[in-house]
Amino acid sequence: MERLEKYRNIIYELLTSHAAYSYSEAESDVECQVVFDRENDHYQILDVGWEGLNRIYNCSIHIDIKDGKIWIQRNMTEADLAQELLEMGVVKEDIILGLHPPYKRPYTGYGVA
Amino acid sequence: MERLEKYRNIIYELLTSHAAYSYSEAESDVECQVVFDRENDHYQILDVGWEGLNRIYNCSIHIDIKDGKIWIQRNMTEADLAQELLEMGVVKEDIILGLHPPYKRPYTGYGVA
Repeated sequence: MERLEKYRNIIYELLTSHAAYSYSEAESDVECQVVFDRENDHYQILDVGWEGLNRIYNCSIHIDIKDGKIWIQRNMTEADLAQELLEMGVVKEDIILGLHPPYKRPYTGYGVA
Repeated sequence: MERLEKYRNIIYELLTSHAAYSYSEAESDVECQVVFDRENDHYQILDVGWEGLNRIYNCSIHIDIKDGKIWIQRNMTEADLAQELLEMGVVKEDIILGLHPPYKRPYTGYGVA
């Protein structure tokens, strides 16, 4: 349970650092949202809004915790999120690259479900 | 504050009813997630997973509460979510169709920011 709280705090730190680089710097009607659902362990960064007549709706990062493991579900940034999690103190076996299909995960060097 | 709690409960009811119709019925490695971030007032339904070698990542519904108003930010279903919110007791002026560009909103019959 203590490890779980530690992982949540690490994800929070990761997301807020990346949110700082997000869309909102442009002068537009686009909001950078940090979604932090501690109850269900779903965590995201989203850009939502309008740029003139163009709708912007983009999830750049989505991370979950399932059964004590951290799943990277989406990464539209150039950052190596798994590497960043490692450097922040997450155990390698506890990181699952959801972006790879299940059959590939045993060969990623990271965790499996 | 009491109205805000009422609106959160209505959104929870709406999302869980729609989540029941979501992807997960198929026999695949796709999870239907209900994201419920009460702290930041972001609410979503997502399908996340793999169908064979195809990655599934789809947000079907996204609703926010901002300044006491309910924003429909995304709706990939055929349901009329604004109408459903009305029927559940939300005041018309408190519903904002984020899916319409800001200039159009005064003509929707629903609220404006």
